[in-house]
Amino acid sequence: MYAVIIAGGSGTRFWPKSRENLPKQLLNISGQETLIQNTVGRISSIISAENIWVITNEQHAFETCYQLKKMGFPPSQLLTEPIARNTAAAIGYSAKILSQRNPDAIMAVFPADHVITTIEPFLKLLKQAETIAKKNHLVTLGIKPTSPETGYGYIKQGKAIEENSFKVDRFIEKPDKLTAEKYLKEGNYYWNSGIFVWKVSTLLNEISLYLPKLHEQLEELTSNTAPIKGKYPYQKLSESGKKIFHSLESVSIDHGVMEKSTNVAVLPAEIEWNDVGTWTSLAEISKNDSHGNVINGNVVSVENSDSIIQAENRLVAALGLKDIIVVDTPDALLVCPKERAQDVKKIVEQIKLEKRSEASTSTSQTRPWGSYTILHKETNYLVKRIEVLSGESLSLQSHNHRSEHWTVVSGVAQVQIGETLQTLQTNQSIEIPKGEKHRLANLDESSLIIIEVQLGDKLDENDITRYEDKYGRDG
Amino acid sequence: MYAVIIAGGSGTRFWPKSRENLPKQLLNISGQETLIQNTVGRISSIISAENIWVITNEQHAFETCYQLKKMGFPPSQLLTEPIARNTAAAIGYSAKILSQRNPDAIMAVFPADHVITTIEPFLKLLKQAETIAKKNHLVTLGIKPTSPETGYGYIKQGKAIEENSFKVDRFIEKPDKLTAEKYLKEGNYYWNSGIFVWKVSTLLNEISLYLPKLHEQLEELTSNTAPIKGKYPYQKLSESGKKIFHSLESVSIDHGVMEKSTNVAVLPAEIEWNDVGTWTSLAEISKNDSHGNVINGNVVSVENSDSIIQAENRLVAALGLKDIIVVDTPDALLVCPKERAQDVKKIVEQIKLEKRSEASTSTSQTRPWGSYTILHKETNYLVKRIEVLSGESLSLQSHNHRSEHWTVVSGVAQVQIGETLQTLQTNQSIEIPKGEKHRLANLDESSLIIIEVQLGDKLDENDITRYEDKYGRDG
Repeated sequence: MYAVIIAGGSGTRFWPKSRENLPKQLLNISGQETLIQNTVGRISSIISAENIWVITNEQHAFETCYQLKKMGFPPSQLLTEPIARNTAAAIGYSAKILSQRNPDAIMAVFPADHVITTIEPFLKLLKQAETIAKKNHLVTLGIKPTSPETGYGYIKQGKAIEENSFKVDRFIEKPDKLTAEKYLKEGNYYWNSGIFVWKVSTLLNEISLYLPKLHEQLEELTSNTAPIKGKYPYQKLSESGKKIFHSLESVSIDHGVMEKSTNVAVLPAEIEWNDVGTWTSLAEISKNDSHGNVINGNVVSVENSDSIIQAENRLVAALGLKDIIVVDTPDALLVCPKERAQDVKKIVEQIKLEKRSEASTSTSQTRPWGSYTILHKETNYLVKRIEVLSGESLSLQSHNHRSEHWTVVSGVAQVQIGETLQTLQTNQSIEIPKGEKHRLANLDESSLIIIEVQLGDKLDENDITRYEDKYGRDG
Repeated sequence: MYAVIIAGGSGTRFWPKSRENLPKQLLNISGQETLIQNTVGRISSIISAENIWVITNEQHAFETCYQLKKMGFPPSQLLTEPIARNTAAAIGYSAKILSQRNPDAIMAVFPADHVITTIEPFLKLLKQAETIAKKNHLVTLGIKPTSPETGYGYIKQGKAIEENSFKVDRFIEKPDKLTAEKYLKEGNYYWNSGIFVWKVSTLLNEISLYLPKLHEQLEELTSNTAPIKGKYPYQKLSESGKKIFHSLESVSIDHGVMEKSTNVAVLPAEIEWNDVGTWTSLAEISKNDSHGNVINGNVVSVENSDSIIQAENRLVAALGLKDIIVVDTPDALLVCPKERAQDVKKIVEQIKLEKRSEASTSTSQTRPWGSYTILHKETNYLVKRIEVLSGESLSLQSHNHRSEHWTVVSGVAQVQIGETLQTLQTNQSIEIPKGEKHRLANLDESSLIIIEVQLGDKLDENDITRYEDKYGRDG
């Protein structure tokens, strides 16, 4: 069995922790690892890393490769989209790529950002789904409802296929409260989990029936896909491939195929499943204190109840709150009542309207070589903390509008300025004049941390000319 | 008439904006200037700067001098306390010092951190108070109540002395709601404003009657008071003077003298007065938006009402809040319901219990030469933004545990390292080795801003040896 993990988050519902450039699946929402790491880890005992594929927006490619590196995930099995075009496009594209490797492949599809805590029953269901998929069914897992949720689509079961598996009678859009209560009572309705199992040949055949235009375009997409040159050779669409992708119809696999196909089976899943849809889910998937609070980070809490208080290093002092969400990050804070958690997207929309950066990026950014954090910014200067991972190096680059002053505060830096190479120990400084070619590398075994002070008339990540890059990034 | 401004805030009620080292009177709570600047400005048309005295904790001396410099306040008229010993000590000490200059002085006492917006009637009352004080009364302004406040002490008026002035029948501690409503209805009760006018000779005589021990000690205090040597020659107690001050009884002037004296007059004051006692006062003294919010700073507000949202540079996104206080500062955030504003001190107590720094200091600190802000701190390094005002200079100093790397990002720096003097232009860097004597000065007309990276095994403001200091600071 192959896995395709759909990592298409837009970063709005868990704002300000999530941003466009760091959506939910790349975050550690609860526990030790990020959601995408959990998603891979959870299936690793039945699907080995060389059979796992991931599809994500290209801007998340390096971070996804980096997060999954330690789990043995090969970067060449990362497909990238230039833009989100909903699940039919992402799943169809992945299926087409897989079918080239193995036309008989059984393909299981998993959203990258869900939480499942009952792993054994989940894996058992997947094995059962595999056997049913072999009989040319499109199989979906239906989560046994535990409450009358109005935030999910539902699936109504039809006739039994075999033990604990049914034909799907129909798919139902998010119901109102009364209807959801009726479904819960009747018992033959399930939450649509977005987890599917099928043969790639079966799926592609159904796509050709119900989304024939897409089916044609998939062929063109695959012939325009190639791995990039560099340390993380993820799959990338060529410029003409990107154009095709932009022209794809934006439709969900549910609406485009599943609702129309006569060939769909549902496996009732009695598992602990959570789609981590809003900040309030945190109270469902995390340990609450004795007053119903979920508190993390640097918090002084006095007489709060049923609240979600998420801090990082900065002190958050909360007093007398009830059903309030407080999420603090270095550059943005969210405060709202729990009952408004669904409307956090309104905040993100407002921020976008005001053309502010906090919807898309935070002060910390990951890069294939490590990460940086903006510590302070004014019009004419900017202070950054730069961490270069062991063995990594930034591109050979120059800037037209700024000079840079580096002080090594931890580790050892290899610095190239012009044609001169030198080693900078901790507690040494150097200046990079404006316009000068330079490169920073860490050949040491421990991390390299430098404090960079930039000065110039334009302090912008786009003010960069790249001459060489080990990760294959352009100009 | 002389003014004595009592600036003894402890920085708890407006936390996290106020801290022990930056209490309320030194903050710009609403409007353009700080509360102590407003307090001086308000009386300046009837009491000139050379007759204004201020008494504050010694840790606030430089900042107080600096804030009042532009109003012509002479630093030699700043008295300093080593510790807070309540208002009888502060007022008695000030009166004794004044009496040495002018035994017949009329002295008006003002809390440094109140807001009064109706200035003309206020000044008219002070003039009237002066004439009554000349007749050896202890005069207090009683604010005409506008609501049944339970947070203030009350004064009951007795027989008339002259038009709009009465003998005080009695002083009353903070009443309960029912009693306060009764007072409001009866109409001959006033809020105790803490504003007093008297002859220093009258006051000292009353102190000798009711607080004889204090009266004796005042003599010793004044003989142990002298201006420091340096740019801001504020008055400072000698070491033995400080010992005496520590031994003073901690009692309010109200309780120690006013409640006992038979000689007290009250002037009913129909003025807009606010003691700015908690964050909720902000809604009383500031312009509210059409939904009753008081919003300042970098805020994205969606559907909030009756809330107080105070941001600085960092984005605060508030959604659907009602009657909530959010106060954000670079290193600490407060979130609580308005009805819990009185309990912000509980947060501060908790922070002190945990031996955290956020009760006493913030990441930004003022110094007589300018200010600094900690941008980032880890165990072995620290990044600061240092601003040196035009014409000012840090002490000639050295550090045993750290080296420093400076990059000038604005202005021109005069740098002394060892015996060598050099000029550093914007965009130049320099290293100060550990143990080396050094000094940073700004001889230029504009501000000097440098980014400092400290490296060492102990990064502590106390790791400093001072060899010379233009402000007279020790070791």
